[in-house]
Amino acid sequence: MAATNDQIQATIHRYVEVFSAGDKAGYLGLFADDATVEDPVGADVVRGPDGISAFWDGVRGMSPEIELQLTGAPRLAAGEAAFPMRAITTMGDAKMAVEIIDVMTFADDGRITSLRAFWDFADLAPYDG
Amino acid sequence: MAATNDQIQATIHRYVEVFSAGDKAGYLGLFADDATVEDPVGADVVRGPDGISAFWDGVRGMSPEIELQLTGAPRLAAGEAAFPMRAITTMGDAKMAVEIIDVMTFADDGRITSLRAFWDFADLAPYDG
Repeated sequence: MAATNDQIQATIHRYVEVFSAGDKAGYLGLFADDATVEDPVGADVVRGPDGISAFWDGVRGMSPEIELQLTGAPRLAAGEAAFPMRAITTMGDAKMAVEIIDVMTFADDGRITSLRAFWDFADLAPYDG
Repeated sequence: MAATNDQIQATIHRYVEVFSAGDKAGYLGLFADDATVEDPVGADVVRGPDGISAFWDGVRGMSPEIELQLTGAPRLAAGEAAFPMRAITTMGDAKMAVEIIDVMTFADDGRITSLRAFWDFADLAPYDG
């Protein structure tokens, strides 16, 4: 049975929560065993627990503090989802932010099977929110 | 040469404009010859001028007045784009709205090669904005 909309919504909200908390184990637990991550779109696609773990380490090694904020309602359609958010990272004394849209597919149990994140380093901008 | 970000931004803004204006010729002109449209995600994928023309007729036959509003910045990445918007349709005396995210790929000349629209009829809600 395909994931329900409630399961998908729960996964999305937990994704934002655990990523912002720096909770690597919680983050990895959200992905199906063979999941793929392309973040940002155009980057190498990483796959599976080892690939996603290395991706996390790379991102969080550069930016230990990243807060994700949903900026609109997740749009769910036929077991897939897209949602707008903002990532805010602290770099020294400054905060920088970038607007992102994540597109995800889901396994029957609600775990993520693929994630594609639409954003560009070039759009990182100072943030005073 | 791949479409530039300026070309992609222009296509997205024109898409919102011509769709809202009910300008079918303008809308069809935004798509590459072999483009695909899946709107909403999960619906049959239509392809090429005939398929996209029939899709337009079906949508606009049911809802002659639809206004699209961008609700956030388009996120461009590696020649693809995702952007959040709202569709507002007038049904009798009432307005209904639904939140949408469109994901698009582009030909070298900036025309759309694929469009996937994330939204669900179930999320249509009365709108008084």
